[in-house]
Amino acid sequence: MNIEIPITASPRVVIIGGGFGGIHLARKLRNKGFQVVLVDKQNFHTFQPLLYQVATAALDPASISFPIRKIFHGYDDYYFRMADVREIKADEKMVYTDIGEIQYDYLVIATGSQTNYFGMEGLIISSMPMKSVAEAIDLRSLILQNFEKALSIQNERKKDSLMTFAIAGAGPTGVELAGAIGELKKNILPRDYPELDFSRMRILLIQSGNRVLPALSEKSSVRAKRFLEKLGVEVVLNTRVLDYFGDYIQTNQKDYTARTLIWTTGVKGCPVDGLPADSIEKRNRRILVDVYNRVEGSEHVFAIGDCAAMISDAFPNGHPQVAPAAIQQGVLLAENLERLLKNKPLKPFRYRDKGSMATIGKNKAVVEVGRLKTGGFLAWFVWMFIHLMSLVGFRNKLIVFLDWTRSYFNNDKGVRVIFQQFDLMEEKKRRKKEMLKEE
Amino acid sequence: MNIEIPITASPRVVIIGGGFGGIHLARKLRNKGFQVVLVDKQNFHTFQPLLYQVATAALDPASISFPIRKIFHGYDDYYFRMADVREIKADEKMVYTDIGEIQYDYLVIATGSQTNYFGMEGLIISSMPMKSVAEAIDLRSLILQNFEKALSIQNERKKDSLMTFAIAGAGPTGVELAGAIGELKKNILPRDYPELDFSRMRILLIQSGNRVLPALSEKSSVRAKRFLEKLGVEVVLNTRVLDYFGDYIQTNQKDYTARTLIWTTGVKGCPVDGLPADSIEKRNRRILVDVYNRVEGSEHVFAIGDCAAMISDAFPNGHPQVAPAAIQQGVLLAENLERLLKNKPLKPFRYRDKGSMATIGKNKAVVEVGRLKTGGFLAWFVWMFIHLMSLVGFRNKLIVFLDWTRSYFNNDKGVRVIFQQFDLMEEKKRRKKEMLKEE
Repeated sequence: MNIEIPITASPRVVIIGGGFGGIHLARKLRNKGFQVVLVDKQNFHTFQPLLYQVATAALDPASISFPIRKIFHGYDDYYFRMADVREIKADEKMVYTDIGEIQYDYLVIATGSQTNYFGMEGLIISSMPMKSVAEAIDLRSLILQNFEKALSIQNERKKDSLMTFAIAGAGPTGVELAGAIGELKKNILPRDYPELDFSRMRILLIQSGNRVLPALSEKSSVRAKRFLEKLGVEVVLNTRVLDYFGDYIQTNQKDYTARTLIWTTGVKGCPVDGLPADSIEKRNRRILVDVYNRVEGSEHVFAIGDCAAMISDAFPNGHPQVAPAAIQQGVLLAENLERLLKNKPLKPFRYRDKGSMATIGKNKAVVEVGRLKTGGFLAWFVWMFIHLMSLVGFRNKLIVFLDWTRSYFNNDKGVRVIFQQFDLMEEKKRRKKEMLKEE
Repeated sequence: MNIEIPITASPRVVIIGGGFGGIHLARKLRNKGFQVVLVDKQNFHTFQPLLYQVATAALDPASISFPIRKIFHGYDDYYFRMADVREIKADEKMVYTDIGEIQYDYLVIATGSQTNYFGMEGLIISSMPMKSVAEAIDLRSLILQNFEKALSIQNERKKDSLMTFAIAGAGPTGVELAGAIGELKKNILPRDYPELDFSRMRILLIQSGNRVLPALSEKSSVRAKRFLEKLGVEVVLNTRVLDYFGDYIQTNQKDYTARTLIWTTGVKGCPVDGLPADSIEKRNRRILVDVYNRVEGSEHVFAIGDCAAMISDAFPNGHPQVAPAAIQQGVLLAENLERLLKNKPLKPFRYRDKGSMATIGKNKAVVEVGRLKTGGFLAWFVWMFIHLMSLVGFRNKLIVFLDWTRSYFNNDKGVRVIFQQFDLMEEKKRRKKEMLKEE
């Protein structure tokens, strides 16, 4: 069955994925002579860098979600379809989805990345990922449920387990999450649960390498570790998680008891079925592309952002899987598609490193831009400003700004509501076991 | 297993339910010589009068939800437990919950009301209730999903069915919901879905009686009906829903095809197991109480709000199941519990009618306070002001105010995000069938 979209004289660009790359590409294609069809399985764009603030009750999920249809209000010849892509067939120039198929002239895969458990079944079943709004809401509910449960548990070991939050992976996501849970411990939870002894609450940040934030400089790593430790986070280095049994973490060093393990260690690409097998990188499942983001061996298929790997001497594993790389590739691809239409030569992609940053609780962050490496309050302020300005939509900017301002002055986080009505861990396990069976 | 709560010299009041009645009672008991234990299955208070705005994407769920623990910050000898009450045993003065049991000196049942399907199985399985935040989020997702699906459906009858929203029950909830969906049809959906023909979208408000808002005066009913029809709502009077088969509504008059049926027709009390059978009203399952809200035949057990029925000549079916009645009973019961402690005579309850109101889309409402009966813009403004001031918490007031102001001027509703990741109707049906099996 065909998805009904009017056929016009303009060549049709189908974009799979409404993340940073897909949205920026789609916007830049406006009035350039294309028909644009964006496909995503969700009807909203997610501002992923702030997911950890949803998970720690600082922000509403809707504040970092923006309806995709609204982004394209008033755009001519733009179509959005909420659909799950099943397969592409390059020889037919066709995308197959759960709601029907769609013909393309140019196809752009911008499906992003997904949590990589490296095949460890215990982790798949029992650890918490944090790559989507739904997962961040689940995590928020779980954190709060743990404390509600801790109140009525008499077994001391189980109580400690409920009050221990382990995070595997000390990249920016893990570090920011650990810092935010540290803030909860310091300022918020003791007021909500005066009956619990918060000296028993542990936050473990487990990292296989020998420093946190390995993508940043040594100096920033040292700084970030100090900030984390001030917030009560135990930084556990040179330790690799081997398995997880629901409340017991096995590592290649010491083992730990923790009811909650948040898995931020690895991501892999989300390639689409139907691509030639040799166009997908083995290790991280990213799609190999040339300097124009063209999928190797395909004339009319492109891939941008986290799901794409443009291998070069400078980037032997492809570019970093961060928003600026996806945005830059999306913007350049819009220009190159126009050049294709006009039979002009394409421009090769050159990555402009916008720097890296991570915030750690209130008033503290590390920022590296070019040669500038800074930390502390100024870095935190820069971090805030950049994130706020990057949010889509005036409403979201304003509400995030208000929530941040409020919580800055009264050390409170407003959204401590548990919206899950079923027992979270049990339901998750059930669903994940079903997923494993299907695979 | 006992729920661990310190035993002090103060008599313990256990309150079941953190709705309007329970929260107001608990607040008023502060520093009155009691230990207060509040039990609710959710960790937040819900501002139910605005649920329909969550369902229609005007407000974030968190804006009308307030963490219960935060309400009691700084209160001495107050305890909250997130628990599901299973049974009470008045002879043991004990409440049994899913996390353990708890002894009381005084027990107050403030469990509110639940959707009443009058035993119609088709309705239980396929219609949408709207009594909780979770249900409002589900309804929001379903409304938006229907339009996403309508885009790719070729069967014209199915497309019409997806674009038809039937609401059974023209009390304030049904009327406000119909008005809000009317606003969506007029201002928002056509911009999001320019490909759909919105002259095909139908909003049916089905009412068994001969007028909408039967609790208000004839004049207000006529006014409200006119406002609704201006927004494109078809008001279907003298019609009783008999059954529903997922997309087919059987009534005692004409039948209708609609993929969505929202059931706001009836509520019944939520009595707790273990109460004497003759203390529960047969028709609406409300708990019979005397003029002091004491459960008939029980010395130390009280019931307030929607779940209680204080029968009198003036109120042969008990008081209206609205927030002001619950609040007034909660406030008086706090005073009476103190009087009990001091061996003073109790004060009988007298209901002060605060009037009724309903808003219908933008700029329109009907309000009746005492002899004043008004409609239109002023009524709408009064409605807004009262609801805003009644919200718990400064953050919620501010964000709701901002969302309303914004949408007033740009005719937009910001929260058009589908947070459900599974197919809503199928999952709902599965769960409800399981519930039916259990019963």
